Amino acid sequence: MTKTVSEAVIKRLPRYYRYLKDLEAKGEVKVSSVDLASRMGLTASQVRQDFCNFGEFGQQGYGYDVKKLKTEISRILGLGKNYSVIIFGGGNIGSALAGYKGFSNEGFIVKAVFDKFPSKCKIDTVPVYNTDELGKFLENEKVDIAVIATQTKDAPEVAELIISSGIKNIWNFAPIDLNLKKGVIVENMFMSDSLFVLSYKMSHKNTGGQNGRKQ
Amino acid sequence: MTKTVSEAVIKRLPRYYRYLKDLEAKGEVKVSSVDLASRMGLTASQVRQDFCNFGEFGQQGYGYDVKKLKTEISRILGLGKNYSVIIFGGGNIGSALAGYKGFSNEGFIVKAVFDKFPSKCKIDTVPVYNTDELGKFLENEKVDIAVIATQTKDAPEVAELIISSGIKNIWNFAPIDLNLKKGVIVENMFMSDSLFVLSYKMSHKNTGGQNGRKQ
Repeated sequence: MTKTVSEAVIKRLPRYYRYLKDLEAKGEVKVSSVDLASRMGLTASQVRQDFCNFGEFGQQGYGYDVKKLKTEISRILGLGKNYSVIIFGGGNIGSALAGYKGFSNEGFIVKAVFDKFPSKCKIDTVPVYNTDELGKFLENEKVDIAVIATQTKDAPEVAELIISSGIKNIWNFAPIDLNLKKGVIVENMFMSDSLFVLSYKMSHKNTGGQNGRKQ
Repeated sequence: MTKTVSEAVIKRLPRYYRYLKDLEAKGEVKVSSVDLASRMGLTASQVRQDFCNFGEFGQQGYGYDVKKLKTEISRILGLGKNYSVIIFGGGNIGSALAGYKGFSNEGFIVKAVFDKFPSKCKIDTVPVYNTDELGKFLENEKVDIAVIATQTKDAPEVAELIISSGIKNIWNFAPIDLNLKKGVIVENMFMSDSLFVLSYKMSHKNTGGQNGRKQ
């Protein structure tokens, strides 16, 4: 069913998922494409087009069943499975991710943190190993996702290690674009980019009308 | 000079800035719009159009001066100033942000963390206060940006507190869209959205050709 779906549509899927979870938590049973569009800052026609990429989710004029649509989008996002995750870098961000329950609730299970100096890491939620021990660790564990939360200068080398060890999916927090190998998926999470967008909007508050736009 | 600039262009500015910092660090003096476009996954014409929003940064055919362009984009982003930042929530994410040097290097200075249970927070980089002490704190400090790194359920109430205390700019990590008041800028940083985009790409690896696209 899935053909080439644009990056913009893919990026909207987690937001639909978030809104639908919220509606479900509030006990809502039905939602119209107009309501959904208004929450997303889109037109109803765009919402219907987005869903058209993945099949038919509702009948025009009747609205969508909240629970069914949420389940469908969860499936499209690849959620509802368990993914085994390891984190490289046991500093501030690595520790935060290792302890964040929001990820495990969605099936992203952090199994271990790897660091060049494990004894310096203050992490008690998962085991911390020396980066050199990755090979040994992988003898007994299948890893779906490696997170790069090292210092920027160490990120390329860590990415090489991850890829050469056969892990195919990287969630990268180091503010650097990694050289990609075919077949490896890298999703970048550049927190500074978001902060800089905020400072842009602060600086242009009275000139550009860019206030408080929803993401 | 700045008119209504599209959200897509604004989101690309931090990436230009990142690339230009990288080029400068590598000692590059000039960069063509073709080179820049290739790194950004855009066309040269798009790059020129992006910059056209803000004036003229180079002469066609001569390329851009790396240092000058970086300085110009830094200025457009509102960087190169000092912003005073406070963080609500001293848990995993709040602690990580309080200790992250990448932000202070760009002028975002974390002054304090506020939490309902300060004694439970393990933060030694900045003072941690009880959320009730915000008013007192603001008698002596001007705050530019408040970061919401609380639990999701507490985020709306904290947002109310922030806005009622007169702080105009919010960087929100809680995965919830806050109700905005006119004149308040909220930039959302939804980490799960990025993780879910990764799991989408993992799930559609062999069907949609969505591998390793640059952000």
